[in-house]
Amino acid sequence: NINCKEMCDREKNTNVHLSLPAVCIVWQTAMIILFGVFMRYDHESDAHWVEHRKHSNLTDIENDFYFRYPSFQDVHVMIFVGFGFLMTFLKRYSFGGVGFNFLIAAFGLQWALLMQGWFHWLDADGKIRIGIENLINADFCVAGCLIAYGALLGKVSPVQLMVLTLFGITLFAVEEFIIISVIHARDAGGSMVIHTFGGYYGLSVSWMLYRPNLHQSSRLQGSVYHSDVFAMIGTLFLWMFWPSFNSAICDHGDGQHRAAINTYLCLASTVLTTVAISSLFQKHGKLDMVHIQNSTLAGGVAAGTAAEFMLMPYGCLIVGFCCGIISTLGYIFLTPFMEKHLKIQDTCGIHNLHAMPGVVGGIVGAITAASASIEVYGHEGLVNTFDFMDKFKDMVPTTQGGHQAAGLCVALCFGIGGGIIVGAILRLPIWGDPADDNCFDDETYWEVPEEEESIPTILQYNNHVQNKDM
Amino acid sequence: NINCKEMCDREKNTNVHLSLPAVCIVWQTAMIILFGVFMRYDHESDAHWVEHRKHSNLTDIENDFYFRYPSFQDVHVMIFVGFGFLMTFLKRYSFGGVGFNFLIAAFGLQWALLMQGWFHWLDADGKIRIGIENLINADFCVAGCLIAYGALLGKVSPVQLMVLTLFGITLFAVEEFIIISVIHARDAGGSMVIHTFGGYYGLSVSWMLYRPNLHQSSRLQGSVYHSDVFAMIGTLFLWMFWPSFNSAICDHGDGQHRAAINTYLCLASTVLTTVAISSLFQKHGKLDMVHIQNSTLAGGVAAGTAAEFMLMPYGCLIVGFCCGIISTLGYIFLTPFMEKHLKIQDTCGIHNLHAMPGVVGGIVGAITAASASIEVYGHEGLVNTFDFMDKFKDMVPTTQGGHQAAGLCVALCFGIGGGIIVGAILRLPIWGDPADDNCFDDETYWEVPEEEESIPTILQYNNHVQNKDM
Amino acid sequence: NINCKEMCDREKNTNVHLSLPAVCIVWQTAMIILFGVFMRYDHESDAHWVEHRKHSNLTDIENDFYFRYPSFQDVHVMIFVGFGFLMTFLKRYSFGGVGFNFLIAAFGLQWALLMQGWFHWLDADGKIRIGIENLINADFCVAGCLIAYGALLGKVSPVQLMVLTLFGITLFAVEEFIIISVIHARDAGGSMVIHTFGGYYGLSVSWMLYRPNLHQSSRLQGSVYHSDVFAMIGTLFLWMFWPSFNSAICDHGDGQHRAAINTYLCLASTVLTTVAISSLFQKHGKLDMVHIQNSTLAGGVAAGTAAEFMLMPYGCLIVGFCCGIISTLGYIFLTPFMEKHLKIQDTCGIHNLHAMPGVVGGIVGAITAASASIEVYGHEGLVNTFDFMDKFKDMVPTTQGGHQAAGLCVALCFGIGGGIIVGAILRLPIWGDPADDNCFDDETYWEVPEEEESIPTILQYNNHVQNKDM
Repeated sequence: NINCKEMCDREKNTNVHLSLPAVCIVWQTAMIILFGVFMRYDHESDAHWVEHRKHSNLTDIENDFYFRYPSFQDVHVMIFVGFGFLMTFLKRYSFGGVGFNFLIAAFGLQWALLMQGWFHWLDADGKIRIGIENLINADFCVAGCLIAYGALLGKVSPVQLMVLTLFGITLFAVEEFIIISVIHARDAGGSMVIHTFGGYYGLSVSWMLYRPNLHQSSRLQGSVYHSDVFAMIGTLFLWMFWPSFNSAICDHGDGQHRAAINTYLCLASTVLTTVAISSLFQKHGKLDMVHIQNSTLAGGVAAGTAAEFMLMPYGCLIVGFCCGIISTLGYIFLTPFMEKHLKIQDTCGIHNLHAMPGVVGGIVGAITAASASIEVYGHEGLVNTFDFMDKFKDMVPTTQGGHQAAGLCVALCFGIGGGIIVGAILRLPIWGDPADDNCFDDETYWEVPEEEESIPTILQYNNHVQNKDM
Repeated sequence: NINCKEMCDREKNTNVHLSLPAVCIVWQTAMIILFGVFMRYDHESDAHWVEHRKHSNLTDIENDFYFRYPSFQDVHVMIFVGFGFLMTFLKRYSFGGVGFNFLIAAFGLQWALLMQGWFHWLDADGKIRIGIENLINADFCVAGCLIAYGALLGKVSPVQLMVLTLFGITLFAVEEFIIISVIHARDAGGSMVIHTFGGYYGLSVSWMLYRPNLHQSSRLQGSVYHSDVFAMIGTLFLWMFWPSFNSAICDHGDGQHRAAINTYLCLASTVLTTVAISSLFQKHGKLDMVHIQNSTLAGGVAAGTAAEFMLMPYGCLIVGFCCGIISTLGYIFLTPFMEKHLKIQDTCGIHNLHAMPGVVGGIVGAITAASASIEVYGHEGLVNTFDFMDKFKDMVPTTQGGHQAAGLCVALCFGIGGGIIVGAILRLPIWGDPADDNCFDDETYWEVPEEEESIPTILQYNNHVQNKDM
Repeated sequence: NINCKEMCDREKNTNVHLSLPAVCIVWQTAMIILFGVFMRYDHESDAHWVEHRKHSNLTDIENDFYFRYPSFQDVHVMIFVGFGFLMTFLKRYSFGGVGFNFLIAAFGLQWALLMQGWFHWLDADGKIRIGIENLINADFCVAGCLIAYGALLGKVSPVQLMVLTLFGITLFAVEEFIIISVIHARDAGGSMVIHTFGGYYGLSVSWMLYRPNLHQSSRLQGSVYHSDVFAMIGTLFLWMFWPSFNSAICDHGDGQHRAAINTYLCLASTVLTTVAISSLFQKHGKLDMVHIQNSTLAGGVAAGTAAEFMLMPYGCLIVGFCCGIISTLGYIFLTPFMEKHLKIQDTCGIHNLHAMPGVVGGIVGAITAASASIEVYGHEGLVNTFDFMDKFKDMVPTTQGGHQAAGLCVALCFGIGGGIIVGAILRLPIWGDPADDNCFDDETYWEVPEEEESIPTILQYNNHVQNKDM
């Protein structure tokens, strides 16, 4: 009976009325308490900086703030405007795309500051000392969850997204600790840590939440003209600021400088091959906005791990060249295949934009690291770039290459394994997710303004007909 | 008689044909003359910098430009894109929202450079010497007037806005001088100086310009789907760059660093409580775009005064937590109440976004200042942060707290008093403001392109009916 | 016969199916090979920086990256979001506006790195060493071609745009070398090198590609409400970040500082006179979005050459004042005149936004340079600002003024001459350009989502009528 089903759906949605405020208030309160116990300013953001500065014989401009703040703001724009607007492309899910992205990023970054703090920045007195680098890392950590959201866009409730984020950040912090600190892999732009993990995490969750009747919402699973233009805002801000993303936490000096150049070149190359493949596989050579919005970014993802390395300008162009092709072909062939045969419904195609290019980036990083030499880097350059210090001071590039590959495997395992577990949790019938014929529709969770624009025309015509009849 | 009324309205509007060009040309000419007499480059932007640099033993990177330019550009984006797009949410006033915002900001910043220059930067030879910090301050000053515009959006003519800005900047500069220089209150992010003043200034003007028959325009006083997405561009750029706003003119080094961290945390916390309250008070727990667009920013406003202080990370989260709740409840309960009972029509709800959070910020600042201690700040840190130098070198935190409170009162008085006076001027029947049934309509002051899109459908149907008839 | 014509058009378009992918793949492959042969990191982005830094007694923060990266990112935003969104104003060419802008900029910057590298950055060993300054210059170079695209918007195929860009970048690099290195003119913000050249290049190409029957597409040659709001995103990002554009490659210290201030003031002044003239020449004083979107930027163009000079704050306001007037009058009178009598169809009005203000900027630069004095600049300041070093160490301001004027002439000649030659090439019937009744239409080169929104209303009404009939 249809009426019954409709009522069930309505009941489902109503649940958010209590659960969403409860989750937000309780978790935010928990954040306040944990921040009270653990979180303090580091020596560059504390009022004691004046003394520290004099003691270390530094000038104010050598505060880490001035090395990283411009990059931080670019990353911040990527997280909120970039990811947010990239997800506005659906005709009736723009509020959900940009709005829920906003919500989970704002929660995620607080939890990320704590999780990453406990793993990486814990002082002897049990306090986490934060500065600008922590803010960047928190934004990075959030990116992993936003990527996962891309696969689920339109099919989950905001409460599910909060749960996805809570677990996603937790898994991320553990995975990152293992890859960076234990395995000693380098991953400045997070091809492995962020994109591979985030991509497979989202895809696994989507697999667990497979909806066989999603076609019931197919009328809403496309774009309209202006929603595609909105999505280009997201695309362009991601594309332009990706050099900042990959260089934000690199070494001061040449590290940041080189990472920015490498990423800039990678991305430029990707645009051309994306356009080529998009045109080649469409009728009449017409371009598809989905490819332009997404595949043009694949080069940035793939440049992540090796961003800081001496990838060489032509190497960057080659990586970008390949990623544009792989990613666009993925949209044309792989996404439909995965939906049909693997039961993975991937709304934004994160497999093509993040997961595959992330793996490519991990492999490129391993190869580049393994082939590093003192001739190319100089002795000090090699030590700096690969951080061959302290207990890793005897490491050589070839073993570093192996460690990079190991890091990639860890990212894959955490993504897939974590996604299956979290997906199982999200299948519980308590989260207020929409019915199959109600997906991709902002009406479910938002007060949507009524569109009255075409009504006057009808009324006018109505009068016109009546007048004619008389 | 309706025809007569329509003609009156048209006459009113036509007035802008002469008054708007006249105001723009004459005032811009006045700016040129005043700039010619008063305005010069300061020693960091003058060609003599090379000599100054060598003399003071500085390097080029220690030019103030490199400390502040990235923050300046972020603030600039907030003023023009942030405020501008936040005001595009109305279905038929997007041109006016973003366009008039552009006009008055471009005029206001010139007048602000002069007014603030006379009060704060006048050299012995009667010249104002400007550098990057002046540009930031001018943008700040403009922000006060743009906030006031938010209350009046859709109900005033561009000429009225120019007058509002001329007086607003003037009042701002005097108020700022009293609060910062005379009273010696600290207000890095302008909770008091910008938001409290700007908010109550706009509300008082709106009260003076009360329109009892505004309901005649009620068909236009809402959003459409895509105008809400446009407004999110404004929201997000304000939200992301607010850390730059609050840190832009802080002390070099830890001051800027800490202000950015504090604001970032405040804002993150606000998002969660805004979502919670919005969902809690709507039918079926649906979120309201008005709250997401506005209340999520309240934490940035409230973090303004104390941004530079040792507010501590958990303190920031608490401030943001409260502001999200207060601001969203304001939209739900206070705005309708004020319109109905206090005769204050507040189009954008600036009372909830700027005025109330500004007062909260002022109070938080006073409390944080009063409780500052040498243990937390260090001796030098305390002197630096609160500028206990020269004639204020004997000041202690508790008296500073009192001065902060006094500053808040001055901001309130200037806002309300100034608004009433300027409102009285703007009631004169010479400014070409729209009639009550013509508000919130771009047709009044803009050439609006005709929408022909739904006509073909009708024609098509027309043919269809005729064919059937035959 | 109409059917035949339609088929011809379709055949024309289909050509892109092979040519566009071919051009993209082949040219990108060429870039990879050329980058492999020529392109290396400079000493600030190479891993040997640590050694160089110690040797030159520098700190990490004195890496050029930290002087220029924030400005670079602003310029990057101008190129991709600024120019891109400025060209979304047409009702049905937003995909082409922002999408083709993206494509040709991504290709152009690679080719620009090579061309400019060969002319300016070639090392003794035949390698081009790139750093952040090269990326900025590449973006600048691309800007010239994007300006030219503005004149051709909606009337050319993406393959034509790639050809336009290939030749445009080549001409630009030669012209720039002659103006900057041979003639020794200064042009920090590129009034001559970028805007005059780009403007007249585009206009000449447009003249060569004159379409007498373009009126057949007139139904699409306007904006709709929301496309005008999208265009304001482009306008504002260009306007806000223009100070970064003009200061990005200035001298460290006062040079960058002064250029930013000068441009900021110029642009503020332009807004007011644009509004004045727009209102003065429209019926009822209504503002025209075309003017607000474009003419408000003219001041930034005109401030380009003299940005670094001691133009003085009031001088900036005067330049902006004049440019707002000239540019707006250009839109009202000159653009229709040029289309009717000179056979130049200028879709975006680049003559008013770039070409004329660029010439004004060149003249302002020549006058300002000629009147420079040691009293105003100081001896070292004069040498620094005008680069009176090495073989130009005996130059004086008056001769510099002459050189500036000569530079302007070179820019004009390259623009007009180059445009005519490239226009002749683009007239070949092999590029897949749209038919006259098919211009300004995204359907030609893009998969455009179907708009179904008004159909339900009709169906609904249909049922309604049928019900009434029964």
